[in-house]
Amino acid sequence: MSLNTASPSNSLRDYKAINFSQKLSLFSEQWSQRVIAEMNNYQFKLAKLQGDFIWHDHADTDEVFIVLEGELRIDFRDGAVHLSAGEMFVVPKGVQHKPYAEKEAKVLLVEPRGVVNTGNEESDRTRQNDVWI
Amino acid sequence: MSLNTASPSNSLRDYKAINFSQKLSLFSEQWSQRVIAEMNNYQFKLAKLQGDFIWHDHADTDEVFIVLEGELRIDFRDGAVHLSAGEMFVVPKGVQHKPYAEKEAKVLLVEPRGVVNTGNEESDRTRQNDVWI
Repeated sequence: MSLNTASPSNSLRDYKAINFSQKLSLFSEQWSQRVIAEMNNYQFKLAKLQGDFIWHDHADTDEVFIVLEGELRIDFRDGAVHLSAGEMFVVPKGVQHKPYAEKEAKVLLVEPRGVVNTGNEESDRTRQNDVWI
Repeated sequence: MSLNTASPSNSLRDYKAINFSQKLSLFSEQWSQRVIAEMNNYQFKLAKLQGDFIWHDHADTDEVFIVLEGELRIDFRDGAVHLSAGEMFVVPKGVQHKPYAEKEAKVLLVEPRGVVNTGNEESDRTRQNDVWI
């Protein structure tokens, strides 16, 4: 019997999934986004939100909110959307919005690399925008 | 008492969240992606996967898999990744991959508008790539 040297069975790699719960366990600071993945020039970021954020917008990009745990309200100047775990919303570019969560909500954000959390508003809520965990 | 005509309180809009479970209830065909949202030129698509897909790659883009329900294995030529609900993986552009699920897995895909499910491989598994639900 000849050894099948073409077979990769002895050297197969076990690639690692990105687990939201495990990544969320690595930080506790609220309103501080942590990057967990990049697809092309887009980033997937986790955040823990509680209380009121500030009004802001992102002039150049839409922004995706996916709620993983808890409840999130996003206020707009003309209304609001209420999101529970297992729900998402796309905030269109240029639209002023203000996230709010009564209890801590755990959220997955998707947006281009380099987007600042407070958009064009300089604020004490502004955070460094490329922190990986 | 004057009427505060600047107040939008009588006309606030209740924007609608995109609910994954509700959207998943709208179709049953496996390996057929349904678009639920767009962010810039990127699409968020739901799919129900069971059994073996075909080997393919996407020459021009990374592809994100987020597992919402069930278990998904993605085989690569040199290994595999095992994903459970609450986990994600980014398949880099140009990397051959083959999704597999023993039982039906419900998956959220993120990739640019226009990406074909079978990549550069023409197959009977190829599906129309811009079907919204």
